[in-house]
Amino acid sequence: MTPPSATDAPTIRLIPKAKPQAIRRGFPWVYANELVLDRRTKALAPGTIARLEDAERRFLAWVGVTPASKIAARVLDRDEDARIDADWLRARLARALAHRERLYDAPFYRLIHAEADGFPGVIVDRFGDALVLQPNAAWADAMIGPLSEALAEATGVTTILKNAGSRGRQLEGLDAEDAVLLGAAPEAPVAVEMNGAIYLADLTGGQKTGLFYDQRPNHGFAARLSRGQRVLDVFSHVGGFALAALAGGATEALAVDGSASALALAEDGAARMGLSERFATRQGDAFDALTALGEEGERFGVVICDPPAFAPAKPALEAGLRAYERVARLSAPLVEEGGYLVLCSCSHAADLSSFTGACLRGIGRAGRRAQLVHTGFAGPDHPLLPQLAESGYLKALFFRL
Amino acid sequence: MTPPSATDAPTIRLIPKAKPQAIRRGFPWVYANELVLDRRTKALAPGTIARLEDAERRFLAWVGVTPASKIAARVLDRDEDARIDADWLRARLARALAHRERLYDAPFYRLIHAEADGFPGVIVDRFGDALVLQPNAAWADAMIGPLSEALAEATGVTTILKNAGSRGRQLEGLDAEDAVLLGAAPEAPVAVEMNGAIYLADLTGGQKTGLFYDQRPNHGFAARLSRGQRVLDVFSHVGGFALAALAGGATEALAVDGSASALALAEDGAARMGLSERFATRQGDAFDALTALGEEGERFGVVICDPPAFAPAKPALEAGLRAYERVARLSAPLVEEGGYLVLCSCSHAADLSSFTGACLRGIGRAGRRAQLVHTGFAGPDHPLLPQLAESGYLKALFFRL
Repeated sequence: MTPPSATDAPTIRLIPKAKPQAIRRGFPWVYANELVLDRRTKALAPGTIARLEDAERRFLAWVGVTPASKIAARVLDRDEDARIDADWLRARLARALAHRERLYDAPFYRLIHAEADGFPGVIVDRFGDALVLQPNAAWADAMIGPLSEALAEATGVTTILKNAGSRGRQLEGLDAEDAVLLGAAPEAPVAVEMNGAIYLADLTGGQKTGLFYDQRPNHGFAARLSRGQRVLDVFSHVGGFALAALAGGATEALAVDGSASALALAEDGAARMGLSERFATRQGDAFDALTALGEEGERFGVVICDPPAFAPAKPALEAGLRAYERVARLSAPLVEEGGYLVLCSCSHAADLSSFTGACLRGIGRAGRRAQLVHTGFAGPDHPLLPQLAESGYLKALFFRL
Repeated sequence: MTPPSATDAPTIRLIPKAKPQAIRRGFPWVYANELVLDRRTKALAPGTIARLEDAERRFLAWVGVTPASKIAARVLDRDEDARIDADWLRARLARALAHRERLYDAPFYRLIHAEADGFPGVIVDRFGDALVLQPNAAWADAMIGPLSEALAEATGVTTILKNAGSRGRQLEGLDAEDAVLLGAAPEAPVAVEMNGAIYLADLTGGQKTGLFYDQRPNHGFAARLSRGQRVLDVFSHVGGFALAALAGGATEALAVDGSASALALAEDGAARMGLSERFATRQGDAFDALTALGEEGERFGVVICDPPAFAPAKPALEAGLRAYERVARLSAPLVEEGGYLVLCSCSHAADLSSFTGACLRGIGRAGRRAQLVHTGFAGPDHPLLPQLAESGYLKALFFRL
């Protein structure tokens, strides 16, 4: 497929009530209720590249259009002379890659973090010679050929996998068909070294057993606290915090997760680190495990809880905050006097202040007091577009009790 | 001097309108307008250890009293059985020290960070075998003998200096007399290694040429971005960011500061690192220097601005935010395309959101656009008491332009 030519691109327009200032200031989305959705616009194929104009017909931006989505257009470029073609993809990609190569010695990182990297809705994670691409917006799905070619050219990878399992694709009306875009899907999990630990990422098994790079600096900070300590990692996934703690000198680490396959990968990682005898796992519901460990009188020098998003969106906020409070209340008693409790949230809807409040209520209800030692966010391979406040989803609070 | 005995300690009481819940939840201060300030209470010597009771005469906490201060009492311990004596000082100190020893391989850190470490108003910075103690509350000034002894015992240092120059001491009605509490004041600046750089701290020269540990992780992050880059460090003090950038592989670093003595210490640090030929300084007003560098057409891969607190308190907030905006507007044009701009604030009154807004306005007015790559706070040797939100004063925003 050849990239769409911008010269003969259609035009879409804001309604008079919509404010173009937000777009001019860098906000990257146009909601459906801000657009003149006439028959012609509604008929545009999802992913069409179009000119966006304000109600006075002044050029605002080149956008990717998905007429049936709530986010009906995504800003690609505010330069009227820009052409959204292979060269454009290459230039954006070069800029994103330069940032990661400045930061990391090894090619394991999030290469493209959507809007903040100028690729609205597109996520690309790099695992050495393999990329996993999530084209979660129609424009990227429509340009997947040139996008894939540009990625291969810029990075020299031999494998590109398309992961189509995200909720974002559903909202865009896109299919959920995974695909191999370049090379062959790896038959075994890929070994990834971070913070001195070895993680195993199953690139074809989907999110449940993939790998998240966002917690890397928080894994690293927890590892610093873990030397000579017993460490508990609840909602451990493939062992993010537990294996980093072992690499940092923990005497033992216990990983708790609901997924047997994730724990198996964690065990494989500990084995490759030569530290299996210091590593244990416990499969089951995390709340049940926290309760049971409390009843067993277990104590740890460092306890980390990194649950799934309890409050992914606003309607779930109150229930989500109660769940975070419960995690704090059940985990605080497991922390030795003078030990550390690390509580994480990857909920968009729970901001730093309300998440901190929920954690402190839970710690207080457990009869403990806390210093806040460190606040961590997602790593720098997950940049934020300041105009999209909600993109700062990940919070990690390091308390000392 | 012997520590005051708590058994015969006086009692002070909240007025009926004051809410004791805040104290019970861990808030560490009692304002003068919350206390029954009868003649007996007003007559208490500054620094007296007293029982604090609620209006119903229930015990709330052991406090240090400064009747004439706006913060008339500071919570020392909420345990009624506690005795505020040498053993109490030792136990608190052991806990604070354990945290720093867990975090740092070398004895260079903030050892006591006031309320968050259970020592209201007390700051202690450690420089190897020397401590600099700021007793910024009357209770600590009154107990300075036992406090100094406990510090020497716990750390084994040979020198303890009292720095009495803080604004906090003025508010407490304390004198501004520096003193040598143990050993002898070092005759030469002390060399401190952090992030691979060598800094020189003049422990007797006061804050202007001392050393601040709080920016350590932000220095480290800036150093990661600086490899192979020209780096500009404005408001450089003794070279915090500039020397870390050189240690991280910057090709050259230019430090700008108003203080010739601070710049001389920075030059000494660069010389000890063997990197003098890559290091330059420019003495003068930072705003003038930014303007001049812009006119000269200078460009840097990384520009850092770490100004003094423009908005130390609420009345200065608006003017302070304008000053931060101006720093951003003048510094953004000096950053290469794809380069990094690091903007810091140590203003209590400017919260993260309003500081970020000021920075983005300035960057926008300079005609640049930004990704937010990383948000850093003070290092973990500067813990926060969550009940005192304002203690999170330091913000460092890493933008990519």
